[in-house]
Amino acid sequence: MSAHHSHDHEHDHGPQPTSLTLYSPAGVLLKAAVLRRAAKRLAAHGFEVHIDEAALLKHQRFSGDDEARLEALHRVARSGTSIAMAARGGYGLTRLLDRIDYRLLHQSTERGMRWVGHSDCTVLQLAMLAHHKSVSYAGPMGAFDFGGDAVDEVTEACFLEAMRGELEAVGFRTEAGFDGLDVKGSLWGGNLWMVTSLLGTPHMPKVKGGILFLEDVNEHPYRIERNLLHLHQAGVLDAQKAIVLGRFTEYKKSPNDRGYALKSAVEHIRSVTRTPVLTGLPFGHVPTKVTLPVGAKAQLVVQGRDVLIAW
Amino acid sequence: MSAHHSHDHEHDHGPQPTSLTLYSPAGVLLKAAVLRRAAKRLAAHGFEVHIDEAALLKHQRFSGDDEARLEALHRVARSGTSIAMAARGGYGLTRLLDRIDYRLLHQSTERGMRWVGHSDCTVLQLAMLAHHKSVSYAGPMGAFDFGGDAVDEVTEACFLEAMRGELEAVGFRTEAGFDGLDVKGSLWGGNLWMVTSLLGTPHMPKVKGGILFLEDVNEHPYRIERNLLHLHQAGVLDAQKAIVLGRFTEYKKSPNDRGYALKSAVEHIRSVTRTPVLTGLPFGHVPTKVTLPVGAKAQLVVQGRDVLIAW
Repeated sequence: MSAHHSHDHEHDHGPQPTSLTLYSPAGVLLKAAVLRRAAKRLAAHGFEVHIDEAALLKHQRFSGDDEARLEALHRVARSGTSIAMAARGGYGLTRLLDRIDYRLLHQSTERGMRWVGHSDCTVLQLAMLAHHKSVSYAGPMGAFDFGGDAVDEVTEACFLEAMRGELEAVGFRTEAGFDGLDVKGSLWGGNLWMVTSLLGTPHMPKVKGGILFLEDVNEHPYRIERNLLHLHQAGVLDAQKAIVLGRFTEYKKSPNDRGYALKSAVEHIRSVTRTPVLTGLPFGHVPTKVTLPVGAKAQLVVQGRDVLIAW
Repeated sequence: MSAHHSHDHEHDHGPQPTSLTLYSPAGVLLKAAVLRRAAKRLAAHGFEVHIDEAALLKHQRFSGDDEARLEALHRVARSGTSIAMAARGGYGLTRLLDRIDYRLLHQSTERGMRWVGHSDCTVLQLAMLAHHKSVSYAGPMGAFDFGGDAVDEVTEACFLEAMRGELEAVGFRTEAGFDGLDVKGSLWGGNLWMVTSLLGTPHMPKVKGGILFLEDVNEHPYRIERNLLHLHQAGVLDAQKAIVLGRFTEYKKSPNDRGYALKSAVEHIRSVTRTPVLTGLPFGHVPTKVTLPVGAKAQLVVQGRDVLIAW
C-alpha cells in the first residue's frame, strides 16, 4: 500500500483490504479455473476478492439468463464492495439496458464503488453516464486480463493505481501533427460498436466538448470506418474536442481491399470531421491497456508526439 | 412484353425498349466479365442496357473514389434511364450520404425512374425515403443476381414484373401464430446493419406504423439480435405494425453458443417488442429474392401460414 492509504493504519484493526467483486454481466465463462486464477492473482495484490454467486452460471452463450444477470448487477451494486470488476465481456448487457436500475448503480458510485470493465461493458458504462452522470472505469476484466498465463505489467500497475485513486493521467505516443493541442472535456467512450449501438436510444450520453476514446476487435477497417461515420453523421464526432483511437485488432484483410487499410479508414474520418483524431492510446482487446475514468473531466495535452490525458 | 405495355405499339417506331443502367455506387467490381454477362442477360429480356462509364473504376475497395461514385449517382439520375440498377453492394454509399443531391434523385423517381438494389444500397434507398419520400426498389443487383452461372427464376420473374409495374404483391410462408394479421403501412427496410447504421442521423426515415423488412449476411445471430435491439431501444420496432424477417445467412457458429441460435435471437426480440415479428420473406443475400417497393403504401395479410404483402 502506498502513502495515500497511510491513514488506514490509525484504525484498531490495521489496514482494511479493499474488497473486489468479480461478476458476469454478459458472456458465459466456460472455464471456472480462469476466474479462480484471476481471483487468486487479485487477492495477491491485497484485494479481498469475492466471486459473485452467479458469475459461473451458464445459459446459452450468456452467464445466466437475463433475470440472473440483472439480479447479479443489482446485487453487486447493493453489496458495498469497493470494486465491481466484470469477469468478461462478450454479449449480454444490451439485453439488460432497458431494465437496469441506474439510480441504484449511481448510489453505489456515490459511495465510492468503482465499476471496471471494457468491451460489452461499454454500454453499461455509457448508460450509467447517460442516466445519472455516474463515473465508471474502462479497464481490465477478470478472465481476460488476470486469468491468463501472464498479467501485463502496465495493465496491472495502471489498474491498481486507478483503484487506489492515485492514477491521475496516462501518457502515450501519437502521430506527428498534433503538437500543441490542449483541450478539456468529459472523457468517455469504449468499444466503438458498443458506443455506436446506443445512437438514437435513451442510453446514449449527450456529451458535448468531450474527449472520446474508441477501440474495437474483429472488425474489418471498412466496418470501423462505417461505425465512425455513423457517429459522425449523428453529430457526435464534430461535437467532441478530441477523438482518441485505441487498438483495432484481430480483423482479417480481404482480397477486395486493394490497399484500403485501417490507415485509410482513419484518413477518411479525418477528412470529414473537424475534430482532431489521434491514434496510439494503449487500450482495447490487447494485453496492455490503461484504466480510464469514463465520465470524468479530463485534459488532453500534446507536446510533440507525446499525449497526456489527465483528470 | 405484356399487355400492360401494349400502348407502346401505337408509336411509329414500335415498342421502345426499357432502358436500364448498371452503375457502381459502392464496392469495386474485380471482374468486368461478370458485369458484361449481367448486361447481356438483361438485354435478352428486352432492356436497352447501358453500363455507366464509371462502373468498372477501381479505387482501393471502392468502385472509384468518392467523387467518381457521387458523380456516377448524379449522372445516372440525370440520364433519363428507366431503371438504375446497382452493379453490386459492398461498402461505399455510407461515405456519400451527406453529399448526395436527394432532390435530383427524387426528381428522377418522379419521372418514373426505378432505383434497384439491396445490401449497401439500403442506406441510399432509406435516405431517399427520409429526404423526399422517394420510392425505390429493394431487389436484385447486376453482378450478384445476373452475373453468375445461373439466374434465379423467381428473382428474375419478380424483378421483371416489378419493373413493368405489374407486380402488386408477394407471397410467402411464415411460422404458425400470425393467422388473421392484417395491417397497412409504409413498406420499408433492407439490410439490417445498414438500417441500424442510420439511427440518430438525418438519413433515417421516420416511419410510423410501417411494415419493416430486414435481412443480413455474415453476421452471427447475437449481432443480429444486438442490431435488432438497437432498433428496439431507439423506438423503431414498437412504432411499426409488422416486422418481416428475410434471410440471415453465411454466419459462423461459435463454441460459446451452447444452443443459442438465430431462433433464440428472434425469440428474444419477440419478447421485447409488441410488434409481430414474422419470418420467411424470400429476401436477402441469397439467390431467390423478391423485389419490393421501398416507401410504398402496403398491406400485409396472413391467412394460416400464408403471408401476402400487397401494394
